[in-house]
Amino acid sequence: MNANRPSGVWAPAITPFRRDFTPDPERFVCHARWLLANGCSGLAAFGTNSEANSLSVEERIDLLDYLVANGIPPAALMPGTGCCALTDSVRLTAHAVGLGCAGALMLPPFYYKGVSDDGLFRNFSEVIQHVGDPRLRLYLYHIPPVAQVPISIPLIERLLKCYPGIVAGIKDSSGDWNHTRSVLEAFAQTGFDVFAGSEVFLLSNLRHGGVGCISATANVNPRAIHHVFENWRGPAADGLQAEITATRAIVQKYPMIPALKAIVARALGDAEWAVVRPPLVELTPAQCESLAAELDANGFRLTA
Amino acid sequence: MNANRPSGVWAPAITPFRRDFTPDPERFVCHARWLLANGCSGLAAFGTNSEANSLSVEERIDLLDYLVANGIPPAALMPGTGCCALTDSVRLTAHAVGLGCAGALMLPPFYYKGVSDDGLFRNFSEVIQHVGDPRLRLYLYHIPPVAQVPISIPLIERLLKCYPGIVAGIKDSSGDWNHTRSVLEAFAQTGFDVFAGSEVFLLSNLRHGGVGCISATANVNPRAIHHVFENWRGPAADGLQAEITATRAIVQKYPMIPALKAIVARALGDAEWAVVRPPLVELTPAQCESLAAELDANGFRLTA
Repeated sequence: MNANRPSGVWAPAITPFRRDFTPDPERFVCHARWLLANGCSGLAAFGTNSEANSLSVEERIDLLDYLVANGIPPAALMPGTGCCALTDSVRLTAHAVGLGCAGALMLPPFYYKGVSDDGLFRNFSEVIQHVGDPRLRLYLYHIPPVAQVPISIPLIERLLKCYPGIVAGIKDSSGDWNHTRSVLEAFAQTGFDVFAGSEVFLLSNLRHGGVGCISATANVNPRAIHHVFENWRGPAADGLQAEITATRAIVQKYPMIPALKAIVARALGDAEWAVVRPPLVELTPAQCESLAAELDANGFRLTA
Repeated sequence: MNANRPSGVWAPAITPFRRDFTPDPERFVCHARWLLANGCSGLAAFGTNSEANSLSVEERIDLLDYLVANGIPPAALMPGTGCCALTDSVRLTAHAVGLGCAGALMLPPFYYKGVSDDGLFRNFSEVIQHVGDPRLRLYLYHIPPVAQVPISIPLIERLLKCYPGIVAGIKDSSGDWNHTRSVLEAFAQTGFDVFAGSEVFLLSNLRHGGVGCISATANVNPRAIHHVFENWRGPAADGLQAEITATRAIVQKYPMIPALKAIVARALGDAEWAVVRPPLVELTPAQCESLAAELDANGFRLTA
């Protein structure tokens, strides 16, 4: 692992909304503090599970400024900054670098499907050149199940060759361990930092040269996931991994983002936390009850 | 067809960029004027083929203002205003209505896949309510091959029930005539305006109660497509349709947006017109040559 570079457990912090669907910076900073105090090394704010693409560029800038103004260290922030529009990606990335964030997590432009590696290379390259700041640490965000636009291994290779040091790593949310292993085999030894996109692959990722995970469920189970990271070389590792995998399996039976928000809402006794922005919808009361019952039966407890 | 409502041939006007990828308002307004003078009833600016999602919200607002300031009548504009973020959709839609545009063409939020009709209903409903202007005419933009998020017939029904008059029509870019026919059968008689998403289906659409087409290739072949619209009840209709279908078949062998721009660049002797914003890439010189040769052999001529 690279000293002074992100590693460990990072949460794509969920974004709270008020009942009128406006973002709630107060609840956001409270959640951010709780995550950092409970096992997260940092926050990949504005990830998929943050409903980032349901926020305007200005809303993302304002929320990030608010976190930093309220004491969340920029070194613990790796905001998502990849948009469909090049100009938006440049603006968000430059803003994150300007704040001193540890990195920027970049989706490929995701409206057009079947685009070429040449076009994607040009996109990332333009962002890097327009931002024009050697402090930029770019983490590629590979999430084909949602974005439908993959970041291929040849594309990573080309970006690393052109922008060594700047192109720092990847979040692999393919959900496919074989793919993550291929990325690790190709690049981990060169200092390219691979985060698993789910804690289910955390131990495997660490054993193969990866640096941690950036995972939705870190929003609600950060401490247990951090225990795997802390103990991955020890004899208890496989048992600890099995526990977090079991918790994940329960949560992901439900629509992930509404489920995470329902868990937080229940733990805090704060129903407004359950609000999601359209096009997402909250869990039904029956889903909330069965999720809670399954987690209780599994011994899971979120301590707020 | 509804008097005073859009019908006929509308072009999702391609958006010109300079070599540095900044939008070029001068070339944009020239192209808009040419389209309106050559058979287009209006412009669905900021559609898929306009690289709309590769533009920031501010870039879209500035370009639309520029068109109107330079004499393009708002009644001939139906800009795309549907974004992933509710706040962006509201802002763009309110801006279009404020300018007096004939309509707003709305994509569903397209980042999350597999979202429910409840969530999509809530999205469109929130936009309509936040815009809060009875002048709004909303055209749903169904393009599952790209957006990957369909607008179902039950969703249309629900929106029409709640917002009659406001929800005015649809652009069906499914590429599936059976689907367009189902939409026509369900809603055309109630005054819901169905535009085919390709001129290939223009005649069929008109014969089944549709009002026209909004089609990529209208950017380069507006006059011939308009002839089908003008003569659809006449004896020449099928022959005219066959001609525009043949031209379309040539163009769509190539990546559509770069191909349209290459055709305009060639006709005007203006190489810069070929620029596309990442993640798209221009046609190769070989592709440009073979496209031009095929169009020439077909007798196609774009008269600038």
